[in-house]
Amino acid sequence: MLKNRILELKEKLMEMASLVETMLENSKRGLVEKKRELLLEIIEKKEPVVNSLEIEIDEFCTELIALYQPKASDLRIILTVLKINNDLERIGDHAENISQSALFLIERPQIKPLIDIPRMADEAIQMIKDSITAFLQKDTALASSVLIRDDIVDNLRDQVIRELITYMASDPTTIERALELIRIAHNLERAADLATNLSEDVIFMVEGKIVKHGFDGT
Amino acid sequence: MLKNRILELKEKLMEMASLVETMLENSKRGLVEKKRELLLEIIEKKEPVVNSLEIEIDEFCTELIALYQPKASDLRIILTVLKINNDLERIGDHAENISQSALFLIERPQIKPLIDIPRMADEAIQMIKDSITAFLQKDTALASSVLIRDDIVDNLRDQVIRELITYMASDPTTIERALELIRIAHNLERAADLATNLSEDVIFMVEGKIVKHGFDGT
Repeated sequence: MLKNRILELKEKLMEMASLVETMLENSKRGLVEKKRELLLEIIEKKEPVVNSLEIEIDEFCTELIALYQPKASDLRIILTVLKINNDLERIGDHAENISQSALFLIERPQIKPLIDIPRMADEAIQMIKDSITAFLQKDTALASSVLIRDDIVDNLRDQVIRELITYMASDPTTIERALELIRIAHNLERAADLATNLSEDVIFMVEGKIVKHGFDGT
Repeated sequence: MLKNRILELKEKLMEMASLVETMLENSKRGLVEKKRELLLEIIEKKEPVVNSLEIEIDEFCTELIALYQPKASDLRIILTVLKINNDLERIGDHAENISQSALFLIERPQIKPLIDIPRMADEAIQMIKDSITAFLQKDTALASSVLIRDDIVDNLRDQVIRELITYMASDPTTIERALELIRIAHNLERAADLATNLSEDVIFMVEGKIVKHGFDGT
């Protein structure tokens, strides 16, 4: 009985993850393809759904713990779902922030072609997808591969900021737009960082080994 | 027996909260008083302690659930501690980010006197303190007062950014320093935002009413 409820819980979590991935993907597309409707949809429609789903999953976890008093591995799974749920909601917030900045940017002339920011978004989305797959399949090797990729996104963000500083310095009229692009880069970096949290939680769930904060528990 | 363990758990959480408040306070002082040692201490000493404490509290909660199979209000308290713990660790990360930016800034000429940023820090610290008091005393009125104060910090951040944009535009040599100040303002805003999360969780713990995301559960 508890096994079935946990399957149900996992399905809900997959729904949440898929929605958040779509939000990141659409915030990128909205920016690159200047699609205002896509951006507004994220802010007005999708983000509220993520918030309701977070509450629903949270309550589901609490209910399962209270009703079934799960032990050992089942309890670990439920507590991991609680954490993943929380981190996914935060990634949704970042997608919303990105959409707000994008709404500002698409109404104004572009400073430069967007190359690194879409790459950051793609990388972050893949990191989330892989973390969720790792969770469902208890695949710690895949989860570990996510942790390493965080550096790629960090480096892209630093590159974006360095480049934008030169634009701002040579033409002060670009400052406001550059700040919004920097905000987007920071939000994508944070989304990728949260994806590594997901993978860390998966590793802990499977191995009981803490990889957080570079502390390997040994 | 479980009651005593929960008291122990609350003590650990208070230790964690106090450490994180000190980190925010010292990151502000390090910046304002240009105290390099204070900033390095946050990054090298205090942040790793917060990370260990987070893991310790997390494990403590899991152990209590697994051993005592708490129901109803005890379970609510333990699950709330889990969330508060996670949010406090994130606030610690923001204090670390602020310290890194401050280390950059204190070696360079000041763009302007720091007024709003220290006010933001003070406000965020008080919001955390009040949230923890609200948790310990199950004081939902105090927790509700924290939620309202988030706007103050948001407005201060917007003001900081607007002002810095005019500096950057009139003197491009200030851009790099202005970006670090903006980064600090964003991190303080996020810390205050996490403090509202703490208070939301307290209200939910006491009233079972969801105030998250402007959704009042009715």
